[in-house]
Amino acid sequence: MGVDLVIGAALPAVLGALLITGCNSEIPRFKYEIKEFQVPLDHFSFLINATFNIRYLYNDTFVDKANARTPIFFYTGNEGDIELFAQNTGFLWEQAERQRALVIFAEHRYYGKSLPFGSSTFNTSMPEHLAYFTVEQTLEDYAMLITFLRNDRQMPVVAFGGSYGGMLAAWFRMKYPHLVTGALAASAPILQFPGITDCDIFSRIVTSVFQNAYNGNCTVNIGKSWKLFQTLGGNDAGKKQISDAFHLCTPLKSDEDLKKFLDYIEEVYSNLAMVNYPYNSSFLAPLPAYPVRQVCFYLKDLHTTDADLLHAMSSALAVYTNYTGSSKCLDISVSSSADESGWNIQSCNQMVMPFCSNATETMFRTSSWNFKEVAEKCYKNYRLTPKPYDIILRYGGRNLEAVTNIIFSNGLLDPWSGGGVLQSPNDKVFVIILPEGAHHLDLRHSDPADPPSVRDARNKEAAIIERWIQDF
Amino acid sequence: MGVDLVIGAALPAVLGALLITGCNSEIPRFKYEIKEFQVPLDHFSFLINATFNIRYLYNDTFVDKANARTPIFFYTGNEGDIELFAQNTGFLWEQAERQRALVIFAEHRYYGKSLPFGSSTFNTSMPEHLAYFTVEQTLEDYAMLITFLRNDRQMPVVAFGGSYGGMLAAWFRMKYPHLVTGALAASAPILQFPGITDCDIFSRIVTSVFQNAYNGNCTVNIGKSWKLFQTLGGNDAGKKQISDAFHLCTPLKSDEDLKKFLDYIEEVYSNLAMVNYPYNSSFLAPLPAYPVRQVCFYLKDLHTTDADLLHAMSSALAVYTNYTGSSKCLDISVSSSADESGWNIQSCNQMVMPFCSNATETMFRTSSWNFKEVAEKCYKNYRLTPKPYDIILRYGGRNLEAVTNIIFSNGLLDPWSGGGVLQSPNDKVFVIILPEGAHHLDLRHSDPADPPSVRDARNKEAAIIERWIQDF
Repeated sequence: MGVDLVIGAALPAVLGALLITGCNSEIPRFKYEIKEFQVPLDHFSFLINATFNIRYLYNDTFVDKANARTPIFFYTGNEGDIELFAQNTGFLWEQAERQRALVIFAEHRYYGKSLPFGSSTFNTSMPEHLAYFTVEQTLEDYAMLITFLRNDRQMPVVAFGGSYGGMLAAWFRMKYPHLVTGALAASAPILQFPGITDCDIFSRIVTSVFQNAYNGNCTVNIGKSWKLFQTLGGNDAGKKQISDAFHLCTPLKSDEDLKKFLDYIEEVYSNLAMVNYPYNSSFLAPLPAYPVRQVCFYLKDLHTTDADLLHAMSSALAVYTNYTGSSKCLDISVSSSADESGWNIQSCNQMVMPFCSNATETMFRTSSWNFKEVAEKCYKNYRLTPKPYDIILRYGGRNLEAVTNIIFSNGLLDPWSGGGVLQSPNDKVFVIILPEGAHHLDLRHSDPADPPSVRDARNKEAAIIERWIQDF
Repeated sequence: MGVDLVIGAALPAVLGALLITGCNSEIPRFKYEIKEFQVPLDHFSFLINATFNIRYLYNDTFVDKANARTPIFFYTGNEGDIELFAQNTGFLWEQAERQRALVIFAEHRYYGKSLPFGSSTFNTSMPEHLAYFTVEQTLEDYAMLITFLRNDRQMPVVAFGGSYGGMLAAWFRMKYPHLVTGALAASAPILQFPGITDCDIFSRIVTSVFQNAYNGNCTVNIGKSWKLFQTLGGNDAGKKQISDAFHLCTPLKSDEDLKKFLDYIEEVYSNLAMVNYPYNSSFLAPLPAYPVRQVCFYLKDLHTTDADLLHAMSSALAVYTNYTGSSKCLDISVSSSADESGWNIQSCNQMVMPFCSNATETMFRTSSWNFKEVAEKCYKNYRLTPKPYDIILRYGGRNLEAVTNIIFSNGLLDPWSGGGVLQSPNDKVFVIILPEGAHHLDLRHSDPADPPSVRDARNKEAAIIERWIQDF
């Protein structure tokens, strides 16, 4: 979700942001064939018969050819190029090897190279091209792909997904239980929708993560910094002071520039909480292990002068913006999240997730959620009228009594856990809490630095998945 | 399904035909307000924002206003004017009174007065008007209506439906379990789809009903009659002989006329099996109790001469076409099923139900199922390309393991039971068999002539529904 679209709340909302990391310039960890599959543009009406191709990644190297009931491990691709998810979902690969499963990563329509209208898909003069960019159309793509892959054979399918991909995995099991035996929905905020989750939960969790990372001064300093930036930014000299302190590539000139800078910082905090991993990882720029702790290390002292606070903030932010020290200047016009153009559109049709924050209770500025303004901007940008209650109508909101065979895993260090399923509605839905986990850490490959709770979670998940396959 | 559309099989397929009965000139048995509810034309894409109104029937006279958890008994309207279903679903009313429920009968889009494009809805020069005539759009209409009616209150909803309405009730529970506590799907042939049920099952059951109605000569005579009609109909004198014997309003002139006549008779047999009720009922024309028995009474002797057989056939058919004796002549151009224009369209998009028959095993002519021809005719008539596997893809075909809280009731005298769920996939799905039941007899009002199996079935259904409400 682009900052400019989140009216009254500059918190970021590209759920998959984390997964779109760690791949730049790295050697691919996992191998696959890239295939294509034809799907109808519109599964649900008979207006047009147009089709297009979605991509999917295919690896059958683990498969026991003698097993007629080979499991399919099916990643329900989310907002980004599917190859990035394949490289960042090590747990699926590890378990596929163990269960001798066929590995499939399906690319979400309108992302990566699965564009229904090719290069004109996002052409703003053709808003009708965006009409079929919905959860339901996407799940139907996956249902058809699985039906094709099974080819009438009895193969148990386990859906995997993280973040928005986890939401899709959960919804896929809910709506197509005849095709999906079970789903691992990691860090899937299926409750982050209007009326069923407080809009400030995300900002409160980010604040909590920062508060507990090093010492309590961290959030005090950040909280104070907004006023400092506003005051300084009120005149040209102050704008220059900020620009210099943060080594901005393009110095702040206008109040609009200042707003963009503040929104950028706010997004950085949220991203930091999401990727607060126990080992080095890369996120557009590389990050150290537990990056929030590093940030807060620079903010451990209560700064009494503006200059000191400005300097400390600059050092703190550099953990995220220039950890390697190789960056000459900070370009705040480059988003810190990949492929957000697609997500901006989804947030303008069905994925209407309210965000807000309260300065007295969090380290963020006060902001409110204003659906009317969101809707106006959506119409202006995309000619789309958001349907804020679409998702709850179809997937039930908090009413999950009839749901079975889904694992909802959530890290308590993950700001998205506020919209996650933290209580099981029945004994066939498994809730796994990772006290030390950031955003779907459990989906990533095993690492020696993994905290025990993550290892435990993976073991539990593996056992449940194995049982689903055996029960099939 | 109009006879002219069922290529290679003249069996009728208007599932709801039965419900569209018994209302002509009768005083309405049940009372309600008629209301309207606005729904999006297309729930699943963001191409258009158009809306239209569906009708629903509302009766709150049984409701205990002090009960915050008032049950809603929701009839998922099928192919016809919703008022006809309301008058022919006495069981719902009887149970609503007992459970003090709010009664809702929702009209299916494109039927009755719930037409998305008013009088131009079915205008053949505007085939795009038919694009939104699907099961999924209809279920979304119902989901929105329930959400509106509940108005954030915790009210258990029980879906009721017979025939295609029963299919909708079952699918509604499957896909929207957060809105629907349970469903009574009476005579719902959710398995009558390509590849999962033999296409000749319907004709075999009809044959069996006729075989067991009086004596075995009934089906022998009917089986022989086809050749007689073909031979006689081969020349003008014979055509006249048939026309006279059956008192046709318009005498047969061409081979095309003869074909229409034979298709008409075939449809009558199927309808007779469906409405083979234990008491007098009316179906365009009135019928006696157990009408198949009456028909077969006239065919109890093995006729050795053509003239005898022709005479006996005429008497037998008159049970259906002129029971009261008030009809001057037989008009075979009037369909024996109401509102089949809508069903013809649905059979050309998703409701692709294969029918065939084998003359050596049934009393019908041999006919095969040819999807290609069906598809060509659908395109020619409506510019629609049928999707024969749409329903199985979405609703799982025979794979119903994850389904809960549905009662599938089927009468073994009902030809549609061949496509019904006759074995429970688990202990939360209830299969109720009515050995003496025709097409969703259990949904009708209680009658002294009801056989014990129907009373037992209703008692069981009532107890299960009561438990669902209590468990809510």
